[in-house]
Amino acid sequence: MEKTLRGACVIGQSGGPTSVINASAYGVIRTALDTDCITKVYGAAHGIKGVLEDKLYDMGEEDAYELSLLMNTPSSELGSCRYKMADPEKDDTDYKRILEIFKKYDVRYFFYNGGNDSMDTCDKISRFMEKSGYECRVMGVPKTIDNDLYNTDHCPGFGSAAKYIATSCAEVYKDAHVYDTGMIVIIEIMGRHAGWLAASAALAGLVGCGPDLIYLPETDFDMDKFLADASRIYKEKGNCIVAVSEGIHYADGSFVSEAKTSATDGFGHAQLGGLASLLASVVKEKTGAKVRGIELSLLQRCGAHLASETDIEEAVMSGMAAVENAVNGITDKMVGFERSYEDGQYVCKTKLLPLTDVANTEKKVPIEWINAAHNGVEKPFIDYVLPLIQGEPKLPKEDSLPRFAKLKKVLVK
Amino acid sequence: MEKTLRGACVIGQSGGPTSVINASAYGVIRTALDTDCITKVYGAAHGIKGVLEDKLYDMGEEDAYELSLLMNTPSSELGSCRYKMADPEKDDTDYKRILEIFKKYDVRYFFYNGGNDSMDTCDKISRFMEKSGYECRVMGVPKTIDNDLYNTDHCPGFGSAAKYIATSCAEVYKDAHVYDTGMIVIIEIMGRHAGWLAASAALAGLVGCGPDLIYLPETDFDMDKFLADASRIYKEKGNCIVAVSEGIHYADGSFVSEAKTSATDGFGHAQLGGLASLLASVVKEKTGAKVRGIELSLLQRCGAHLASETDIEEAVMSGMAAVENAVNGITDKMVGFERSYEDGQYVCKTKLLPLTDVANTEKKVPIEWINAAHNGVEKPFIDYVLPLIQGEPKLPKEDSLPRFAKLKKVLVK
Repeated sequence: MEKTLRGACVIGQSGGPTSVINASAYGVIRTALDTDCITKVYGAAHGIKGVLEDKLYDMGEEDAYELSLLMNTPSSELGSCRYKMADPEKDDTDYKRILEIFKKYDVRYFFYNGGNDSMDTCDKISRFMEKSGYECRVMGVPKTIDNDLYNTDHCPGFGSAAKYIATSCAEVYKDAHVYDTGMIVIIEIMGRHAGWLAASAALAGLVGCGPDLIYLPETDFDMDKFLADASRIYKEKGNCIVAVSEGIHYADGSFVSEAKTSATDGFGHAQLGGLASLLASVVKEKTGAKVRGIELSLLQRCGAHLASETDIEEAVMSGMAAVENAVNGITDKMVGFERSYEDGQYVCKTKLLPLTDVANTEKKVPIEWINAAHNGVEKPFIDYVLPLIQGEPKLPKEDSLPRFAKLKKVLVK
Repeated sequence: MEKTLRGACVIGQSGGPTSVINASAYGVIRTALDTDCITKVYGAAHGIKGVLEDKLYDMGEEDAYELSLLMNTPSSELGSCRYKMADPEKDDTDYKRILEIFKKYDVRYFFYNGGNDSMDTCDKISRFMEKSGYECRVMGVPKTIDNDLYNTDHCPGFGSAAKYIATSCAEVYKDAHVYDTGMIVIIEIMGRHAGWLAASAALAGLVGCGPDLIYLPETDFDMDKFLADASRIYKEKGNCIVAVSEGIHYADGSFVSEAKTSATDGFGHAQLGGLASLLASVVKEKTGAKVRGIELSLLQRCGAHLASETDIEEAVMSGMAAVENAVNGITDKMVGFERSYEDGQYVCKTKLLPLTDVANTEKKVPIEWINAAHNGVEKPFIDYVLPLIQGEPKLPKEDSLPRFAKLKKVLVK
C-alpha cells in the first residue's frame, strides 16, 4: 500500500463536449469530495487554460443536488479548451506555470477529462511533475463520442451519441417512407477518421428502420459506386436512406466534403452546406429523385435527453475509478474499459492504460466488421454497440424541459 | 338525436407527417372499431389516393396492441399523399370515383387527417356526396406541426415539435458555450409562412438556454439589422444563438433562403445547403466569428421520442371526437381545440369548425406576441405554448430503441 498523499485535486475538461462528459466529471468530483486525503476539489475553468490562468472553481461550494444533475447535463460544464501544450523539451513555460499553480494550491491530484489530445497533455504534465520532483498523481478520464481511443473497449460519450443517431435515423426512416413518391435521404454523421458513429446508424435496422447504405472513413469512397448503389436501391424500393461519416474520403485520401469548398452562394460567400447537401445534390442529378440532406451536427453530441443510462453509469464509474486509483498510488494512467459477458450479460469493468499508449493512436472500426461491398456493417458491429446504448435514465425536468445543473462556480481567490 | 347511420368508415392521412398524426389516427380507428353502427374500419393507403386506387386496409385485422403503438409512432403509418383534387365544378372524375368506391364498400363515414389542403379535400368531397344524394359524414382531423390552422387554439403535432425544438436548442446552447472562444450558431426551423415553431425555441429560455435572437416570417427580415444584432450580442457575450424560420423574407416578399439558389458546388450542381448555412456564412464574413449552421430538418417533425404527452392525448382525443360527432349526425366539420383554465390549470376541449373556414386561411403568430425589435417573442407567446409541451409519454422500447407499431396492412380484396 502506497503512503497516503494528502493534498488538493484539480479536475479539468477538454476537447469537444459529449452528453456524458459531465457525468465523468461528477464521478471525479463526488468521489474526491468524499475522500479524506483530498483536501480541496478544484474545477479548472476551460481545462488546462484555467490552471494556467489561475481560474479555479471551488467545487466544495456547490450544492450536492446540483452537482448530481451533472449526470444529465450535456456539454462541458467547467468549460473546455482546445489548447495544445508545447513539447516541454522545446518550451516549458506552460509546465512551469502549472507547477507554480499546483504548488500554490498544494495540488497533488490532477484529473483530465478528454480525448487523445487531452491524454497527451496529461502525459506531458505527468512527466514534467516527476522530473521536477513534485509529487502529483495524474489520471486521464476518457471522453469522446468518436470512440477512437486506443486499447479501451469503448469510450464514455459514444454510447449516448450512438443511441441518438440510431433513434434519429429510425424516425427519419419513418418520415421518409410516407409518400408513394419516394425520396433519397443522406444523413451526415460525425467522425473524421473513425466510423463508429456513422456505423451506429445500423442499429435502427433492429427496429426495421435502418439505413440502406452506410459509408465509413475506414474504406475509400467511390462516388460512382455510391451513385450506382443509391440508384439501384431507389429503383428497387422507391426510397433510399444513406448514412455517411463526415470523414469519408477518396482513394487519394482527399475528403469528399472538400470538393465543395469552391462553391459560393449568391452573396459570394463560401458555402458552408456540408457533405450531406453535396451528396444529396449529386444523387439528385443522377436519379432525379426527391432528395434531402440532413446533418446531425452538434445535436448528436449534446442530445442528453436521449442518453444511454449505461453510458452515464460508466462515465461516472470512470471518474470514480480515476480518483480511487490515484489515491491508491497510481499515476500516469488513463481509465479504460474492459468488456466481458457473465451469463450472457454484458459487464463493463475499468482498467488502467499507460497515457503514452493512448495519446497518439486512433482506434478504427475493424475492417472485418464492415461488409464486403463497403456500404454497410456486419453483425459483430451490432453485437459490439448494442449493450452500450441500453437503459433510459430518469431525466430531471422542469416544465417538461431539461433541468440542467446550475453550478455556482465560485472562483478561488 | 339523428337516426343511426350504419356503414363502413374510411380514415386517410395526408400532407407532411408529424410525431402524433398516428395518435390522431389511433383515436379514429380505435373509436370506430368500438362503435356498433360502424360496420368496417378501412385505412386508405396514401390518403385519398388509396380511395381512388381502391387500396384500403382492413383495420379490423390489426392486433389491438400494435394499433395502440400508433400513439408513439411518428410519421403517417397509413401513408400520405400531396394529391390536390380538382375543383369538382371543372372536373369531377375523381369525385365520381370516390363515390363509386364509397358505394362499393358502403362507406358512410370519411375521416381525413391533415392540414389546410386536406380540409379543402374533405370539404369538396363532402359537398359532392351531398349533391349526389349519397349520405356520408365527412370529418376533418387536424394535424400540422406548423400550427397554422385557422380558428383552433392549436393543432396536434405542434406541441411535440415545439418540445423537440426547445429541448434541442437548450442542448445546442450548452454545447455552443463550452469554449472560451465563442461561436455564433444559426438554427433553422420549419415554418414557411407562420413562425410558431421557430418562436418555440424561446421556451429554452425558461431553463436559461434560450436563443439570443429569433426571426419569424410574420415580420420582414432585414439582413443589415440581423448582422448588427448578431455582432452586438457576440461582442457582448462572446456567443450568439439565433433561431430562424425557414420562411423569413425580405420586405419585398422574397425568401431570404432563395438568395442562395444560384450557388453551385464543385461539381456544378446547385447547392442544397439551406438558410442556416447561408446566414452562418454571411455572419462569419461580418464578424470573423466561428459559426455553425444547424438545420433541424425532418428531425423536428418526426422526433416522437421527445413527444409531448399532452399533444399525444389531444391528438387521440381529436380522432375520437371526430368519430363520436359523426356518429351523432355531424358532418362537414373539422375538430378544433378550445383552451380554458380551470383553477389556473390548462384545459383543452374539442370544438367543431366548418371545413370551409379552415380550408383556406392561415393562422400566424400575433404581431403583439413578437417584440418591438422583431427579433424575439414576448411572454404571452410562452404562456400560450408552454402547456402544449407538457408530459413525458411512456415510450415503448425494444433494446432501448423505439418500438414502433407494426401493422399488417391487410388489403381489402
